[in-house]
Order: sequence, then C-alpha cells, then structure tokens
Amino acid sequence: VGIPTPRHGSKCDGAGFDAAQAASSVERGDALGPALSSLDAIRRLGSPSIEACVLVETTPLDIQSGEPAISHVRAAFAAGMHVITANKGPAAFAYRALAAEARRAGVSFLFEGAVMDGVPVFNLVRETLPAVTIRGFRGVVNSTTNHILSALERGESFASALARMQADGVAEADPSLDIDGWDAAAKTAALANVLLDADLTPQRVDREGLTAASGARARSAIAAGRRLKLVATATCHADGHDPLAILDDQANALELDTWPMGRIVITERDGGLEKTAYALVSDLVTVARRIRARR
Amino acid sequence: VGIPTPRHGSKCDGAGFDAAQAASSVERGDALGPALSSLDAIRRLGSPSIEACVLVETTPLDIQSGEPAISHVRAAFAAGMHVITANKGPAAFAYRALAAEARRAGVSFLFEGAVMDGVPVFNLVRETLPAVTIRGFRGVVNSTTNHILSALERGESFASALARMQADGVAEADPSLDIDGWDAAAKTAALANVLLDADLTPQRVDREGLTAASGARARSAIAAGRRLKLVATATCHADGHDPLAILDDQANALELDTWPMGRIVITERDGGLEKTAYALVSDLVTVARRIRARR
Repeated sequence: VGIPTPRHGSKCDGAGFDAAQAASSVERGDALGPALSSLDAIRRLGSPSIEACVLVETTPLDIQSGEPAISHVRAAFAAGMHVITANKGPAAFAYRALAAEARRAGVSFLFEGAVMDGVPVFNLVRETLPAVTIRGFRGVVNSTTNHILSALERGESFASALARMQADGVAEADPSLDIDGWDAAAKTAALANVLLDADLTPQRVDREGLTAASGARARSAIAAGRRLKLVATATCHADGHDPLAILDDQANALELDTWPMGRIVITERDGGLEKTAYALVSDLVTVARRIRARR
Repeated sequence: VGIPTPRHGSKCDGAGFDAAQAASSVERGDALGPALSSLDAIRRLGSPSIEACVLVETTPLDIQSGEPAISHVRAAFAAGMHVITANKGPAAFAYRALAAEARRAGVSFLFEGAVMDGVPVFNLVRETLPAVTIRGFRGVVNSTTNHILSALERGESFASALARMQADGVAEADPSLDIDGWDAAAKTAALANVLLDADLTPQRVDREGLTAASGARARSAIAAGRRLKLVATATCHADGHDPLAILDDQANALELDTWPMGRIVITERDGGLEKTAYALVSDLVTVARRIRARR
C-alpha cells in the first residue's frame, strides 16, 4: 500500500498496487508519485484510509544520532503500525524507549537484520531460549573489516584489499563507518541494549578500528598461531577473555546448509547434564505457549 | 501427577503431589508406589481421572530398535498427551510416523534435547528460520568422542583418556555406543529425518567410530595443521566438503554467554545482501504469526 522514497517520490494507495511495476518505474527514472517527507508518508500510511499494517524501514544510518530511522519507527508506532527494520540505529540508540512505545501501542518492534543479516540472533534468544539469562557476548559482526583482515593475512596491502572490496560492492564508497569500528560499535550497543538490558549508545562503546598497522599485526598474529579480529563484546560482569578457538573437549557444533541463509553454525561450548535438563524445560515452555495460543 | 519408574515403583495421583518429596523417598530407597509397567502408567496418567497434559520421557535408548521410548511416545499420543523427550530414539527411528500421529492427536512432539543438549537446533529451525530450506548439515555432536580426540591430541593414550572420562562421569560405563559412533549415527538420523525430511534409521547411516589407531591419526592431523573429528553429516545433494575452519572473509559469528546453557556460538558463514533481505522476511513472518495468535 505504500513506498515512500527520498529521491523518487512516494506512492501511497490503500487499494494496494504492484510493487514490481513500481520498482521498474523507479529503475526507468520515473517518479513514483509526488514528493512527500518520510514522516508525512508514514502518517498517511497509518491513517484510517489506508491502515498499513507494517512499516519496513531500510534507511541508511547517521551514526551520530541513529536518525532518521528512530523518527520513522516512532511515527509508525504512533500510527499503530508494527515496525521491521534492518537498521541498527533504533536498537543502538533508543531501544529502551522504543520497546516501551511499541508495548504501549500493542505493536511489534523487530530488527533481526541489524546484526548478522538474517541469521537468527535476537530471534534466537527471544524464541528459542526461554528462561535463559544472557550474561555477555563476543562476536565478529562486521564483514568488511573481517574481509580486510583475512586479505591482510594473505599478504595483500590494506589499500588494495579495501579497493578490491569496494569494487566487489562489499565495502561502501566511504568505508570509514566499517574501518573505524563504528558499525561494530553500533551493533555492540544494539546487542547490549536488547540482550543485556543495557542503555548504551555507540558513542559509549570502547572502540578500536583498523589502521595502517593492522596488516603487520595480522601477519604477526598468524605467525604466532593466532588471528587478529575486530571483536564486538560486552559482559555483565568483568571476566577474563578466552580465545575464540572452539570445539575443544565437550564442545558440540552443528553446521546447517540452508537456503537462503547459506551455512549457519551453532556451537555449544559447554556441554553437561544441566544443559540436557534445560532442553526439557525449553520444550515444556513451547508446549505451554502452544496451549495458550490455542485458547 | 505421575512418576513411573522401572525399579522404584510408580506414583500416579490426579490431585498432584510433591515431586521433591518423591525424589527424596527414592533416594532413601523407598518405593514410590506399586510396580506398574511404563505403558500401564502412561495409560493411567492419560485417563479421565488424571488427564496428565505432558509426558516427559527420559529412558535410555536401545540402539537396535529405538525402544522403549517409541512405545512410550505412542501411548502418550493415544492418551491425548503432549510428549517431550531428551531421547533421540523416537526421532531417529520413527519420526515420520510419530509426527503424523501427533498431528492427528492434536498434540506436540518435541525432542530438543536429542542433539546438543538444550542448545536450540530443532527449535532454531522451526521457530527462527521461517521459509528456509535446510539442504544439509555437518556437526560435532558427540561429547565423549570429541573429548577423547582432544585428549589424544595432547598425547594421552586412548585407554587413559577413556578411563579419565568415565571417572569424570562424562562417558558411560559401557562407552561403546559413543566410541563406535552409534550415538552420532542416531543423532544424524534424527537430524536428517526432521530437517531434511529423510526416512532414515541409525543402521542406515554410514558410520566410523574411534579405534586404537585414532591417537596416531589425531596427532598426525595436528602436525599437518588439521584436526581429526567425528563428524555427523548429511546432505540432500552430494557436494564437496569444506573444512570446518570458519570465520574467513565475510563470515560473522556471535558468542552468547548464557545461564544455564553456557556459551552458545552462532556463525553465519556466508554473508550477503540477500541474507539481509531474509531478515526482513523472517521478521514479517513473526509479525504475521503474532497477528494470527491474537485472533
């Protein structure tokens, strides 16, 4: 029922329209309709004449403010719409306030794509780990820097690794958000806000990006049997850090080969009987949820 | 409302009773009540005088037949009860038939604990990967053999590694189900039946366990920069296999430190734009499910 765009005009029609046709007309360079601010478009889509059900928000992020996504999310809630976004801004800058607004409006606020694309992270915790407390996380969550570090290990120069990735469309024309660690900091804030009940912004995350010295560090790490990684991490309690090396001793892991998500690996680093008991608790909660849903 | 046991008698009481007190009396060596076959106990628990809601099935597995768990599951479905089990037998030997029986009875059939304890595997796919096709899997899913292989790498002898693990309570007194690969084969069959719509039994899975030669193989693998693993794998299409080495290039990974499940790692091996798009689809399905649940 609606496609608001910043440069190709906006189309809103309560009767619905053909999205593929609209995309073709944008590709031909035609405007979708009259220019309309995104906030006006969202209000119109939520109005009684259209009553759009869900806003799918996909704007680029201003790392200083989390905007314009936060305002879009807020306007959609006010109009009674559910919100889905692949944008990390709202969860990184304003999760606590937005989650409360969604609850009050009786709508969903979902952002699985904010970290690790469609691999379930937030959904994993919410849907499959009932009664589990998350005490912290460590992750490699920025593809551009991990790609560059892997290229540096193979002996490529920083400049050529970056240029190749820009040519491949992996890195942005302005890759500083990735290189300087801002993307990882925003994801760290989003994960901490949602999983650890923190109230962070990306600016409050300790941040170390890649530099001209990263190549030498990556190669000397390899020579020492280690690997240099840009790691996003937060803990509720300060603990010593273990290396990311996995699958020693009782660790279990399972790799699923899927369409469209490619290969997903889930690893259990600490096995044990109480973990088996948790499986039964988890299934019991599933049964209870199904019984409640049927009532 | 009920605790049927094979050696300590059975207690069934529709008014409910204190489970901790019952456990204490078993620990003191007292019988819970009169001896009753497990099937008679399940029928009694499902009868109108008790109407138990869920059977939690935790018997040991006969690897030749999948029993007695399969008969227990079947009796519970016939009595209108949901079934939760940490036993891999029912899913490994009779998933297709049991899933159909559960559907007909309008009850749930859940067995998250059958693979990787309470780490979500079956729940992960069912609850967080809507519209995803699983094309195959590879996993390290048996703790005893992975523990032994890690000990062999460190130079321990097979016999001493096994003895230590039996002393630690990790391996069974008769560890042959683990060592000979039967446990992994049963998990492979269960995963293939549920995730790939196969109709396998553990006997039909190609199986290679640990032998006296495993120590030498594990140490020569380490010397070559590799590691020997007992891998459970199945694919819908025959493909070449990659090493389990992860996190190259665009791979992302996130480790969650949780209670009670310890450290859980989820890895996205193949990033990309279509994976971000899938995140939006996944969230959209979640919104649709919530809307439907509210109706």
